[in-house]
This record gives sequence, C-alpha cells and structure tokens, in this order.
Amino acid sequence: MASHDETYQLLCDQAKEAALIDSIQQLLEWDERTKMPSTGGAYRADQAAYLSGLTHQKQTDAKIGGWLDELAESSLAAKPDSQTAAVIRLLRRDYDKKVRLPQSLVEELTRTAVRGQQAWAEAREADDFAKFRPLLEKTVDLKRQEAAALGYETTPYDALLDQYEPGETAANVGRVLMGLRDALVPLVQAISDSSTRPDASVLAREYPVVAQETFGKQAAAEIGFDFDAGRLDVTHHPFCVTLGPRDVRLTTRYDPRSFNDGLFSILHEAGHGIYEQGLPDDQFGIPLAEFVSMAIHESQSRMWENQVGRSRSFWEYFFPLAQKAFPAALNGVELSTFYDAINEVQPSLIRVEADEVTYNLHILIRFELEKAMIEDDLQVADLPAAWNEKYEHYLGIVPPSDADGVLQDVHWSAGLFGYFPTYAMGNLYAAQFFAQAQKDLGDFDASFRQGKFGELREWLRTKIHQHGRRYSPAQLVERISGAPLSHEPLMEQLQEKFGKVYGL
Amino acid sequence: MASHDETYQLLCDQAKEAALIDSIQQLLEWDERTKMPSTGGAYRADQAAYLSGLTHQKQTDAKIGGWLDELAESSLAAKPDSQTAAVIRLLRRDYDKKVRLPQSLVEELTRTAVRGQQAWAEAREADDFAKFRPLLEKTVDLKRQEAAALGYETTPYDALLDQYEPGETAANVGRVLMGLRDALVPLVQAISDSSTRPDASVLAREYPVVAQETFGKQAAAEIGFDFDAGRLDVTHHPFCVTLGPRDVRLTTRYDPRSFNDGLFSILHEAGHGIYEQGLPDDQFGIPLAEFVSMAIHESQSRMWENQVGRSRSFWEYFFPLAQKAFPAALNGVELSTFYDAINEVQPSLIRVEADEVTYNLHILIRFELEKAMIEDDLQVADLPAAWNEKYEHYLGIVPPSDADGVLQDVHWSAGLFGYFPTYAMGNLYAAQFFAQAQKDLGDFDASFRQGKFGELREWLRTKIHQHGRRYSPAQLVERISGAPLSHEPLMEQLQEKFGKVYGL
Repeated sequence: MASHDETYQLLCDQAKEAALIDSIQQLLEWDERTKMPSTGGAYRADQAAYLSGLTHQKQTDAKIGGWLDELAESSLAAKPDSQTAAVIRLLRRDYDKKVRLPQSLVEELTRTAVRGQQAWAEAREADDFAKFRPLLEKTVDLKRQEAAALGYETTPYDALLDQYEPGETAANVGRVLMGLRDALVPLVQAISDSSTRPDASVLAREYPVVAQETFGKQAAAEIGFDFDAGRLDVTHHPFCVTLGPRDVRLTTRYDPRSFNDGLFSILHEAGHGIYEQGLPDDQFGIPLAEFVSMAIHESQSRMWENQVGRSRSFWEYFFPLAQKAFPAALNGVELSTFYDAINEVQPSLIRVEADEVTYNLHILIRFELEKAMIEDDLQVADLPAAWNEKYEHYLGIVPPSDADGVLQDVHWSAGLFGYFPTYAMGNLYAAQFFAQAQKDLGDFDASFRQGKFGELREWLRTKIHQHGRRYSPAQLVERISGAPLSHEPLMEQLQEKFGKVYGL
Repeated sequence: MASHDETYQLLCDQAKEAALIDSIQQLLEWDERTKMPSTGGAYRADQAAYLSGLTHQKQTDAKIGGWLDELAESSLAAKPDSQTAAVIRLLRRDYDKKVRLPQSLVEELTRTAVRGQQAWAEAREADDFAKFRPLLEKTVDLKRQEAAALGYETTPYDALLDQYEPGETAANVGRVLMGLRDALVPLVQAISDSSTRPDASVLAREYPVVAQETFGKQAAAEIGFDFDAGRLDVTHHPFCVTLGPRDVRLTTRYDPRSFNDGLFSILHEAGHGIYEQGLPDDQFGIPLAEFVSMAIHESQSRMWENQVGRSRSFWEYFFPLAQKAFPAALNGVELSTFYDAINEVQPSLIRVEADEVTYNLHILIRFELEKAMIEDDLQVADLPAAWNEKYEHYLGIVPPSDADGVLQDVHWSAGLFGYFPTYAMGNLYAAQFFAQAQKDLGDFDASFRQGKFGELREWLRTKIHQHGRRYSPAQLVERISGAPLSHEPLMEQLQEKFGKVYGL
C-alpha cells in the first residue's frame, strides 16, 4: 500500500518534470511570437526542438509504463470517481499516445512549427503564399506521419483532432457544424432581410493604441484576470500561454482605426487566462491542474468575449469608461448606437473579427480544408484557390488577397491541424454553460451593470476550473447542465439578442 | 588522425549542447528581469535551477574528460597557437573547474540567485535591507561553499574572481586599484579646487521616456548595434544578455528627469552587445565564439560609453539630434554647456551614475566589502553600516537610505561575488585599447563628428571580437598594445579631458 503511494508519487513527479520543461518551451514560443529579434529564428528553432525532444523523453520513459501497470492493480485506481484514479487514467491515456510518436518526429514537428510560423509571418507581411507553401507542405506531410504513428479507425484527421478534443471525431464535428449551420441560416437570412442596420462607423474612428492597451488591461483586470500572475503583450495572432502556475500571458494586436480588434481579443484571451489562473496552483504539472480540452478552453474565452463582453449590461458599466479613454471617438455617442455597432452581423473575411452569428462558418471552411489536406484530397498548392471558393460558397465573399484570406491564421503554420473545430464546439459549450449559470444564479445583468463579474467567475471556478482535467468534456457538460452538448442554447441566445438588435 | 578529428567534433558538439541549454536559461533570466509578472518567481526559480543543473550535467559528463585526455596527446593540441589547441586548452580549464562543483550546489546557487534577485528588488523598492538579508546570508554561505569546492591558494575570494577573470587574484586587484587611486587623488583634488564648475542642471530637465527610448535606440544603432539581431527593454538594473548567435538583448532604465540614466546605460550595454554580435556566429557554443573575460567585456562597454559616448566629437554629431528629440529641454542650450554637463565630476552615491573620474572608487568599496564577506571578516548584518562607512571614507558622503546605498546593485543578490573588480579592470583595458586604436588609425574626432563609428568598430572586431576566447586577457592586451595592462593610458586620457573641462 505504501509502495503504491510511492509509485504514484514517482509518477506525478515525472509528469511535473515534463511539465516544467514544457513550460520553459512555452516561454521560448511566447518570446518568439512577441519579442524575439527578426534574425533570431534559426537558433530559436534549435532551442525549441531540443526542449520538445527532452519533454518527449520524460513523457515516454519506459518506467512510466511500469508504474502505470503497477498502479492499475492498486486501490488508488480502484474507485473510478477518485482523484487518484482520474490521474492514473489520464496519464495512461497520455503515455499510450506519446509512446507511439518517435522522438525524431516530435523534434522535427517542433522545429518545423517554429520555422513555419516565421515563414507564415513573412508571407503574410508580403501577401505572398508562395513564401509559406514549402513549409506548409512539409508540415502537412509531418502531420500525416504523426496521424499514422498515433493510429486511427476512420480518417487520419481523427488522430489529430483527438489530441485537442479527446474522443471527438471528424464525423461528429461535421454533423454538429452542419446542424448548427442549418439552424443559423434562417437567422442570417432574417438579419439580412431586416431594414435595421447598425451604424458601425463609430468603431472605425481613431482609437490610440496606448489608450487601447490601458483600457483593455482595465477590462481584463475587472473581469478577473490577475496581472500579478500574468501580463499582456502585442503579437501578430493573439494567443494565451501559461509559463507556470503563477504566470499566464495574454497577447493581442491593435489597429488604431478599430475598436474591436484589440479589445475583444483581450477579453477573449483574458477568458482563457482566467481559466488557467483558476486551475489549482499546487497541482501544476499533473492532470488535476490541466484544462479539459481545447473546446472547453474556448468556451471560457468565448463566454467572456461574447456572452459577457458583447452584452448590453457589460457596456452599461464600461461604456462611460470607454468614453473617458477615447474621448475623441466616443464623446456624444449613444450607448445604444455603440452596442448595436459591436453586434453588427456582416459576413466578413477575417475569422477573428467575425460576428457571433457568422463566426462558425469560418470554422466550417477551415475544418473542411484541413481535413482534405490531411486526407490527401487537397494539395497545398491548390489551397488558396480552394479557400477562396469556400468563402464564396459559405459567406458570399472572395478575399481580395491571400493575406486577408488563407494566410490570416497562424494555426497551420504552427502545425495545429484538428484544432479549428474546437473553436465552434467552444461556442456551443459557452452558450450551454452560460445558460446553466443563469439558471443557477439568476440573470447577471444587474451585477454586470455595476461592474461586478465575480459571481459568474466563481461559478466557473467551482464548476469547471478547480477540477482540472478530471472530467471529460462530455462528462463535464452533463455534470453541469444535466444534458449533452446541444446547439440549442447558442441558437436561443443568438435569436434573443439579434432579434432585438435587428428588430426581428 | 581521423579518430582525433571525430573526438574533437564530439567535444565541440557536447559544448554546443551545453551552450544551447544555457542560452535558454539566459532567456528565463532576461524574462525574469524584464517581463515576468510579480508572483511568477517561485516557479521561475525551479525552471532556472532545472536548466542550470542540466547544463552542469552536460559540462561535467565524464566522457568529456576522456575526450580531453585523448586529444591532449593528439596533433590537434600540438601547436599551442592553433585554434584547435586553444579550444582544447580552454575546454580542459572549464571542465576541470566544473567537475569540482556538485550539481546540487549548482542548482541551489541558481535557485537562490533567482529568489535573491526577487528579494533584492522588493527590498530596494521598500528601502528595507532586512527583507534582503536572509537571502544574502544564504548566498554568501553558498559562495563560500563554491569557493571551497573550486579550491584556492590564498583566499576563497580568488576562486570566485577567477571565474570572471581567469588568472586574476585579489592581491593583484588590490594593488591595481590602490595604484589607480593614488594616481587619481591629485586629479580629483585639482578638479575640486578648480573654480570652473559645469552647470549640470540641463540634464535634470524633462526628458520624456518615449523620446529617450527612441533616441537611445538610434544612438545604439548608429554606433553599430544590430537591432535585427537584438532588442532593448526596460529593467531595474541594466544588463546585456545573449540568447543565441543572432539574439543579443540590451536593457536600460529611464528617469524622465535625467538625461544621463537612460542614454549612457544604453551606450554602455550596446558596447557589450556589439562585442557579442562581433563574436563568430558559426562557432556559437565553443570558446572561439565566447568572450575573453568580464574585464575585456567591460572594456568594450566602457569604451563606447566613455571614450566615445562622452567625447566632444560624438556630441558634435549627436547634440543636434538630441535637440530635435528633446526640444523642450535642449533648445537654446550650447553644445559646450551640454558637453561640460555630461562630464561633471562629482563624488556621488550611485555607481552607475558616477563620473569617469570617481567611478573606480565605487568599485574599490565593493571589492573590499565582498572580499571581507567571503573571507568571513564581515557579517551580512553589518554590511549596511560598513557600506556607509566606506562611502564616507572614500567619497566623503553617506547614503541617506539603503536603497541608494547598499541595495543599489543587483550583483550580490544574483550571487556575483568577484565580479565588481572587473569593472575597474575594464576601464583600464578600455583606455589602453582606445589609445592603441588611435595610434593605429589616427584621431577619430573627424569621423565621429560625421556620425561615422565603423572604423573603430571594425578595429575592435578585428583585434578582439573575432578571436573569441582564444587569447587570455594578458595575451590580448600584449598582442594589441605591445605592453601589459597599465593605469597610465586611462590617467592620460582623464588628465587631458578633464584638464580642459575644468581649466586645469
């Protein structure tokens, strides 16, 4: 018995050592994407590859398999609902997947991801897909190798998807997204037919970058992001990364002629950051302090960005502060004009700027394209044309340039295939969780209106954050809402909100 | 023969692997001192300790000893002047020192250095030495253990000094500093007796931080720091760090009511950075791309800061640009007023703000105090009083607070004992090298006046940078100037310059 406790401790220590090395690699990546000088990239790729190889070694050490075998028979694993059983089960899952990947492939994937992101940034800057193509071809090839090594039943895409969303399949994602699309179409049509049109020009006035940063930090802090354990920097493509139990970093980008770009990215990334800061510090490095899945992570960012950050009551509190921060742009503007403007629905080219209603169509496009690339049904050379075709088909618009089209997202350059669908699933989880929070606690409008966001945050902490990865996405949504994931809560919220905005 | 070549390759690869890990640790430290959120420190210490332990493992692997033994007999080591012989000799020296240090001590030193710097920053902020004292006591104790492990003949201080300045001793440093002091005293006295007094009030006008940063970057770039392979950030205590062959980072701090603080720190750190950028990229990780010693490093920073950056011809070019950058402060100011102001000699409290004439007295104080702590002749508890006594004795002033006294430097908190003397030696090397460069190339005034600094930079690159660590400090100064290090070049330059400023 004592021996099993010791083995369990050894297992956790090994996981923590791997997490520590990985956290250093996250710093390399954060720095690469926010600070690193332009010619530092080649050596940075070597540094990142070295650490990813080392992490992989620690995660695939044969003694882990021995410990797991030993513990499988122990009382620690006997009660499936216990914390220890969950840790053992999840580390077994991780180990079984990791040992299938040769270290050389892991290092090559990392090196290619670093170089790929550099090539992508240059190609995007130059609006020249050809500069990115060789790296993307190499990346797709490596991801196919990765899928083959991991194994799959139906499609290699499932093997990649499962890394971000345990248990999820391409078939199910396709069904869900198509179902959501069918429910959205009448709403988009009704909005399009409406004679009400928000005037969004107010959002394209002068918003000085320094004031955007100050206001964005204030908003992030007020919804609950702790800047003593985090920071905010500028990057090409906003992200959130955790460098340790008390070090969570947000990034955004600013456009001095756009209110939306900077602020809603900050609220979004702060939602991720609040989740990370809500995981138990003292368990850092084992599944009890890890996030559930990418979609659950995204549910947190989208809830703070959309259900909260694009609500009227949020702006009843923040709009006067925004007017002080941006007097030239917002003095004399009515709250209702502003509120309608940030909720304008308009098929657009850029995913991260898309409205709540059309956003998931952007995901559908990426899902279909990346699945086709991984299944070898689409060649990288044909990607820009395929991208433009899909945009015309689903959104009725064609990007005027690759920079605003196929080059807009960092994901593929970083080797993130199978990641995009989790954005759409995240939107569904966000709506379902938010609906449940309102059922549990009543309407939040009165507290939001006073700048009080703690009640919702504590609800999320108690229901989701504090459990780490103990429950699967499916278990979690069932525990919280008593029902499996459905697109209905999202559709109800969209219909309610946009029905008002567009006078439907 | 082929086998020796292979062994040599293995030896170099091992050194490069250790350097790669160390370069990642440098990123951890850079981030800790410039970006890390306030509560991230505890985990950061674990990360840094882990990597330092790993670097130490790579540097002390027994197979290195075997390779070195094998190569000692080979033709690669036969010609002492060859590059390969230098690499083998220097790696032997490094290995023999490293293997004397137990890994547990190395990790503990690193962890304590990270925590010590955090405690120091807090103590300095709060002007409360007591907050720093326990960490400093622990650091002194660990450094004494380190000296004991390394071994020494006369004093444990020599073992620490030798890590920064190979072959240097406390006895010799004491002699040099005392000799320099004796030569300085009549000059300080003459300046003090002079009726000419520069009006330095112009330097305490409003210098907006944003303009300081822009102007400082321009100056650093014009003297030759490459911002495509480096950057500049803000910190408490300015430093320069290399994170890879194309990634050299400068830091500074700004005071909106001081011209000197920001700019001369930038020129100083850019001098370090130009040296690092001048080392051969393709040899990164082996002694051919490493700096000679801390004093030689400091000679590069001090030359750009003082011999160049505080010269009249430098400002004949830059002063009009400074007037554009800081119109409110500098419009209508005469160049000669400004030049005299930046060369004011005034015994002061803060080392990094000290003038060229009194600077070395600050070093003398630190040298005596740290030597006494390491030799157990001074207890940490008594350090603030001892500090104040020495300042009264050598400079005639007593710090009004510990923040401006014993807490002003980061070095001891980071475990850097034996480091301070290299600042003074660096001043002497700088003067001797600059005198030789003028002998070789003629006076630089005409080119500086036109903003041309390439001639001096190339001279430094050819004479010093490109050789890496191939020559010892003593060999280098002999090769370059045909004479051993002397305080005379510095004294001649000071007498010439300050004789004019003070009308002596």
